[in-house]
Amino acid sequence: MAVERKIMKVLKGETVTPPPIWIMRQAGRYLPEYRKTRATAKGFLDLCYTPDLAVEVTLQPIRRYGLDASILFSDILVLPDALDCNVRFVEGEGPRLDPINADGIARLDPTGMHDHLAPVYEAVRRLRQELPEETTLLGFCGAPWTVATYMIAGRGTPDQAPARLFGYRERAAMERLLDLLADMSAAYLLRQLEEGADAVQVFDSWSGVLDEEMFEAFCVRPMKRIVDTVRAQKPDATIIGFPKGAGMLYRDYRQRTGVDALGLDWTVPLSFAAELQKDGPVQGNLDPLRVVAGRETIRDGVDRILDALGNGPLIFNLGHGITPQADPDDVGYLVDHVRGKA
Amino acid sequence: MAVERKIMKVLKGETVTPPPIWIMRQAGRYLPEYRKTRATAKGFLDLCYTPDLAVEVTLQPIRRYGLDASILFSDILVLPDALDCNVRFVEGEGPRLDPINADGIARLDPTGMHDHLAPVYEAVRRLRQELPEETTLLGFCGAPWTVATYMIAGRGTPDQAPARLFGYRERAAMERLLDLLADMSAAYLLRQLEEGADAVQVFDSWSGVLDEEMFEAFCVRPMKRIVDTVRAQKPDATIIGFPKGAGMLYRDYRQRTGVDALGLDWTVPLSFAAELQKDGPVQGNLDPLRVVAGRETIRDGVDRILDALGNGPLIFNLGHGITPQADPDDVGYLVDHVRGKA
Repeated sequence: MAVERKIMKVLKGETVTPPPIWIMRQAGRYLPEYRKTRATAKGFLDLCYTPDLAVEVTLQPIRRYGLDASILFSDILVLPDALDCNVRFVEGEGPRLDPINADGIARLDPTGMHDHLAPVYEAVRRLRQELPEETTLLGFCGAPWTVATYMIAGRGTPDQAPARLFGYRERAAMERLLDLLADMSAAYLLRQLEEGADAVQVFDSWSGVLDEEMFEAFCVRPMKRIVDTVRAQKPDATIIGFPKGAGMLYRDYRQRTGVDALGLDWTVPLSFAAELQKDGPVQGNLDPLRVVAGRETIRDGVDRILDALGNGPLIFNLGHGITPQADPDDVGYLVDHVRGKA
Repeated sequence: MAVERKIMKVLKGETVTPPPIWIMRQAGRYLPEYRKTRATAKGFLDLCYTPDLAVEVTLQPIRRYGLDASILFSDILVLPDALDCNVRFVEGEGPRLDPINADGIARLDPTGMHDHLAPVYEAVRRLRQELPEETTLLGFCGAPWTVATYMIAGRGTPDQAPARLFGYRERAAMERLLDLLADMSAAYLLRQLEEGADAVQVFDSWSGVLDEEMFEAFCVRPMKRIVDTVRAQKPDATIIGFPKGAGMLYRDYRQRTGVDALGLDWTVPLSFAAELQKDGPVQGNLDPLRVVAGRETIRDGVDRILDALGNGPLIFNLGHGITPQADPDDVGYLVDHVRGKA
């Protein structure tokens, strides 16, 4: 590439000052231009599967804030959707799927996944063409455990009890499902990298509800399987792992899975984050509610993170997706303050 | 006391083999005898405030399993109830309160709390008389932050966003509320200790949703205030702190708050739990869903905990309250297996 992209430098272990910044769920409901585009789509999945619309909403926060990375607009549930799990989004209630059991797992067939996901690949290709040269393009997928929690419960739940219980009772079927999802995820990420993604992030949003043994079996092992499979094809592939809520289990997650960088949720204490940063790049971790609370709270949180992590490889981000209540002007203030301009 | 109570020995730092055991929410809906008694009460709070009924349900799991501790049957929301927050329990939906704002906080008046809570104190007194001599009697309360999350939102929420946002926006009012609740909690725990509780546990069930600075301000500081206030009156008072979901922030929680023992949730890895145990007693931490999943899963989980923590001061417990789906016979198996009898 002609221009060196800041986030790629950090992901290789360099310290960039001020740190580059992007925002999880940056293309989202807090932006009026997103809501306008969203209203033209029949449903949420149509937005993901219509390249014109997916590209447009992905570019919106780049135009507004000049963020250092753009992340493909999509959803972690496109993989179960490619497996005919009847994914739909109920307004105000979140996702619904036809819940799956051990028999159903045995019948899952990923054969048609790339055809199903062709519009996503097209969006990635067009994004790389339309994005500014200096902007990193990130691909992503959900981690197998997190995707499986939705497939088993048929919906989001507060503590993923249905999937945890299934994992205890039907361990073999659960591992079969996780292996299948890991292999699909690797294939999906590889195609995103081939179409122009500079790096990919794997979101394990529900890794914080498992005990140590289950975390190892259901989170670490499938993530390592993804990393190994992707690297077998693309040895220089750059992968960010985000085991949200992993707490103490962040400790050797990078070493055990092989990911290059660690996404940190907002509950990770900064002293611990600095320890994790000694082993490589970290990304995070402002509480999204600080953005809602206003500029004083943003400034205080940003300054604490920069003090603790600014002298090492850091990608500034929130510790979880931005919320619809965030004021777009305050998001602008956040970006400016991280860049030392406000 | 004539008989030395095993849990009190552990709380003083001794290793007891096999470890004593009790179960969070052991008087609960999984027991048919509980459901029968519950049906005779008008509502959930009537069960808490009617000493005959509260004593009966507290004793039920002791009769059935001979557990090493009995914990007063009550609820963490009796303090907001004593503050006229209109606490009610909606069947199948959990607690509801009249949500409070900064003005409401300024008007809270704890003057009548001991009169309001007199039935609880009577239950404690009668329990100490009726329990077997060797059974430890535990009192408890909710931690100020956790209680405050319900008072501010008026209900439980998945991530306590209303209270977190209030804490950022109205920091002074939040700290005023937490101080008030800490002082009430200390007074409440002291009365429980005077009426016969051997030790007390403070449940901070929602400590896992805060960033490091807020955890310090909203969880650590109020807990320390409780500990200091109780110890000023009763220097030998024994206090178990349970900052559920604290993750890495468990690391120096004991030192910063002054609690004698740490309750560990099921996501705390056992290698880390063993480190925490070097500084004093720990309690936990079997995933409650292992009990639902059946005996093989129970045995595996128990053995891992005993291997990691059995050679130090350990009170065996679940890592969170037992669920209504648990089979009472499997709970019996759990108790027997911990005791080396199954």
